[in-house]
Amino acid sequence: MRVLFIGDIMGRPGRAAAASEIPKLRDEYGGFDFVIANGENSAGGFGLTEKVMNELFGAGIDILTNGNHVWDKKDFVPLLDSEKRLLRPANHPAGTCGRGHAVYEKNGEKLAVLCLQGRTFMPPLDCPFRTADKIISECPVPAVFVDIHAEATSEKRALALYLDGRASAVIGTHTHVQTADEEILRGGTAFLSDAGMTGGHAGVIGMTADSVLPKFLLGTPCKFEVCEEDVRFQGAVVEIDSETGRSLNIKRVNRSVIKNH
Amino acid sequence: MRVLFIGDIMGRPGRAAAASEIPKLRDEYGGFDFVIANGENSAGGFGLTEKVMNELFGAGIDILTNGNHVWDKKDFVPLLDSEKRLLRPANHPAGTCGRGHAVYEKNGEKLAVLCLQGRTFMPPLDCPFRTADKIISECPVPAVFVDIHAEATSEKRALALYLDGRASAVIGTHTHVQTADEEILRGGTAFLSDAGMTGGHAGVIGMTADSVLPKFLLGTPCKFEVCEEDVRFQGAVVEIDSETGRSLNIKRVNRSVIKNH
Amino acid sequence: MRVLFIGDIMGRPGRAAAASEIPKLRDEYGGFDFVIANGENSAGGFGLTEKVMNELFGAGIDILTNGNHVWDKKDFVPLLDSEKRLLRPANHPAGTCGRGHAVYEKNGEKLAVLCLQGRTFMPPLDCPFRTADKIISECPVPAVFVDIHAEATSEKRALALYLDGRASAVIGTHTHVQTADEEILRGGTAFLSDAGMTGGHAGVIGMTADSVLPKFLLGTPCKFEVCEEDVRFQGAVVEIDSETGRSLNIKRVNRSVIKNH
Amino acid sequence: MRVLFIGDIMGRPGRAAAASEIPKLRDEYGGFDFVIANGENSAGGFGLTEKVMNELFGAGIDILTNGNHVWDKKDFVPLLDSEKRLLRPANHPAGTCGRGHAVYEKNGEKLAVLCLQGRTFMPPLDCPFRTADKIISECPVPAVFVDIHAEATSEKRALALYLDGRASAVIGTHTHVQTADEEILRGGTAFLSDAGMTGGHAGVIGMTADSVLPKFLLGTPCKFEVCEEDVRFQGAVVEIDSETGRSLNIKRVNRSVIKNH
Ligand SMILES: [Fe+2]
Ligand SMILES: [Fe+2]
Ligand SMILES: [Fe+2]
Ligand SMILES: [Fe+2]
Ligand SMILES: [Fe+2]
Ligand SMILES: [Fe+2]
Ligand SMILES: [Fe+2]
Ligand SMILES: [Fe+2]
Repeated sequence: MRVLFIGDIMGRPGRAAAASEIPKLRDEYGGFDFVIANGENSAGGFGLTEKVMNELFGAGIDILTNGNHVWDKKDFVPLLDSEKRLLRPANHPAGTCGRGHAVYEKNGEKLAVLCLQGRTFMPPLDCPFRTADKIISECPVPAVFVDIHAEATSEKRALALYLDGRASAVIGTHTHVQTADEEILRGGTAFLSDAGMTGGHAGVIGMTADSVLPKFLLGTPCKFEVCEEDVRFQGAVVEIDSETGRSLNIKRVNRSVIKNH
Repeated sequence: MRVLFIGDIMGRPGRAAAASEIPKLRDEYGGFDFVIANGENSAGGFGLTEKVMNELFGAGIDILTNGNHVWDKKDFVPLLDSEKRLLRPANHPAGTCGRGHAVYEKNGEKLAVLCLQGRTFMPPLDCPFRTADKIISECPVPAVFVDIHAEATSEKRALALYLDGRASAVIGTHTHVQTADEEILRGGTAFLSDAGMTGGHAGVIGMTADSVLPKFLLGTPCKFEVCEEDVRFQGAVVEIDSETGRSLNIKRVNRSVIKNH
Repeated sequence: MRVLFIGDIMGRPGRAAAASEIPKLRDEYGGFDFVIANGENSAGGFGLTEKVMNELFGAGIDILTNGNHVWDKKDFVPLLDSEKRLLRPANHPAGTCGRGHAVYEKNGEKLAVLCLQGRTFMPPLDCPFRTADKIISECPVPAVFVDIHAEATSEKRALALYLDGRASAVIGTHTHVQTADEEILRGGTAFLSDAGMTGGHAGVIGMTADSVLPKFLLGTPCKFEVCEEDVRFQGAVVEIDSETGRSLNIKRVNRSVIKNH
Repeated sequence: MRVLFIGDIMGRPGRAAAASEIPKLRDEYGGFDFVIANGENSAGGFGLTEKVMNELFGAGIDILTNGNHVWDKKDFVPLLDSEKRLLRPANHPAGTCGRGHAVYEKNGEKLAVLCLQGRTFMPPLDCPFRTADKIISECPVPAVFVDIHAEATSEKRALALYLDGRASAVIGTHTHVQTADEEILRGGTAFLSDAGMTGGHAGVIGMTADSVLPKFLLGTPCKFEVCEEDVRFQGAVVEIDSETGRSLNIKRVNRSVIKNH
């Protein structure tokens, strides 16, 4: 099966980029069985709203993974319980609103998707390695796609090697910068440290430079503003053998989005 | 002028990769005016020794930048004072051993090199932005190459935009994973979030997976061991207009190093 | 001279405690030349408002130091420039709104007050040690009171020893828990790692347990609510020799505030 | 039953202080059923050795809890498996060497001791709240003593309130500074944010100021040296009702240790 994964969608420019590029990529790649995107920044950079979520599903995204920003809009949180296509990091403890993994079926293909959050340079959570162990060992389908939302390159890479042969793909998000290390590991797991960010790249990881620089220069809080320039669509396409769950190929996607007038 | 920058050299495999690839790259690119490498991991992954330093200079490296690991081998620290080709992060306070920037001359070309360390998810230091302001404003030559040794993508990108038009290149190190965002910014500054790592890539950012995983799985310290498999040479080549200091081009380098028998 | 220092005032219960106890303490101690309080949590736990500030000045507080929360209410920030009795951490870089130190005069006594913020487990700022060096070396009066707003016991203690004989008092804030290590150091500097918190102590450092526990149990953000039970007034009284600037005595204050009906 | 708990024992001065003060305190308090100490810094400030451990048991300590430094001396780690009187934080994952809790019996009294480590500003571990839930719910005896080895006051206090009525005592360690907030909570749990440190207090949390200050002033690593001046014995005495497990009383201990010649 063919899966398109889209790196953190940042605000309106990111949503527009997803809407414009998904159809083109479908044509170029001959269709996708699943389109997955990390949606944690899709509403103005901070979390999601129901409207934004529906816009993204309408643009052809089947499943929205998330990360630390999924909690930003308080009114949205109950949707994590009711909307099965939404995932939050699975390594929040039992009792947390929402789900961290699910099996999806489309076109006769079945794909388990697992959302995990790292702990290095991030807030305390349950162990993503042990959480993955448990979920994957009980997983009823061979193909498992993992979004590891984490800061540290070491933690992402360690998780991928730990899950090599057990997950179909381990792809990182959260840094908003795409890495150049895509690879099929020995056991058949597709790996990429970070899928990047879908949104305006002219500023600082999706926000305008002007709105971010005071934080670095003065140490005072800033009101971040979504960057609308140099909009790019970033992610990866993974080909998975549906029967074995092994990946056959991973290709980074990183393209400029030209605004139409 | 043409500058080859080499991402963190990791232990013996990294040193061997530098020695074998620098001459080949010279041939392919038609020579380099300066070869700069981040050396903070060149001695077994932790700091440098005098012997290792001389081996790297002998392999064709002109200047060694560094980062947080430069202090790891206590006996090496005095060399930071005596050896002008060594730089430690410039944003340590006045009174710290060694220097953080210098102007180098070769082939009639002059290049200022500035080493800075980030503060996000890293130990406290002086502000890298203000330190760069001061050094660059007093810099007697137009071409300034900056190694920003930092964890957070936001801090690296913000520094590059802040210095755009004032530095020739702002290239990141420290995460050991090469990013795919090389770019000439509007003001002529070449930027790359992270140059990557020169060493064995089969494990976890230069160490073997077996020696690193217990830290993640058990939360107990590990004795990290240098990875010798999948050795790659990673860095970037930057073309700088010597008169204006603006960069004309930046190209990532990321190549497998085949061992000769 | 005699100085009353009040640990972080937390919301309405903290303000009420300050208003009720300052007059009683004045009577018991025979008056204070200066009353200083850390006000960073005085408006609902997050920052200050103009109204709250005026209420605190009206309750007999002469100077309000602050810490990381001083920026929480955006509308309040300009007051840092206009109101001389307000201090924010002095080790924000030049260009930051407000001031970090000032000399105050009352009853014929002169006292310099310096507000500093730590960097260990806190956001990056300029070095508090170097900042103190500069300000104290230029200080026109012998008596200097330092509020070191910091998380780590090591950083607070190191600063106090570093300034011993140069500052009259180095008293910590930010953890909201009073420490039991009050002491006059060898050079005459009064020290206390943390002055504690003036507000409701039944919950978790000033907030109700119910509103804080989900963060620890689920890893999800909470809406913190100010605790109104077990209200305590915490701080310290320091006697300073106005001519030498050396402290003669430091006494912790830690008392229950009984509500009147 | 009466329990003496001793805050982090720091190197040789701390061990000498324990040896000299335990007998005196026994006399003053009319005996202790259990003497518990946090031993993580007892060998030169970093971990333990077998010799040091035996010296501490010989001085009258029954149980040694620990924290993040327990792993510092590699040769010592296997003793965590073989020596039942040693505890490491219980919230390391299954598979970690050693044990985190045990029931001890002495003088006909039974006491469960549980060692936990915090996660705020500390390395990732399993959740201390959930770990405590599980261990306490299965605990066969009513009296449970908890050492919460943690940096943040909020996490320690939150844990104590969470366990109120289920643990006999929740006493903090790790900051090396004794707090002044001892209290019997509503449900009968004795609480103290930090028991303090048993060792030389003239420097910075047990190390000499001279050996620690360069880290703060220059940002470079230091070789810390154990402080031998102003030696203090710090801890707490807790009276527990053996049948209900509720605490009746908690008293801080904080006394100078005069060297005998
Ligand atoms: Fe994101
Ligand atoms: Fe994120
Ligand atoms: Fe490195
Ligand atoms: Fe580094
Ligand atoms: Fe506070
Ligand atoms: Fe604070
Ligand atoms: Fe300790
Ligand atoms: Fe500790």
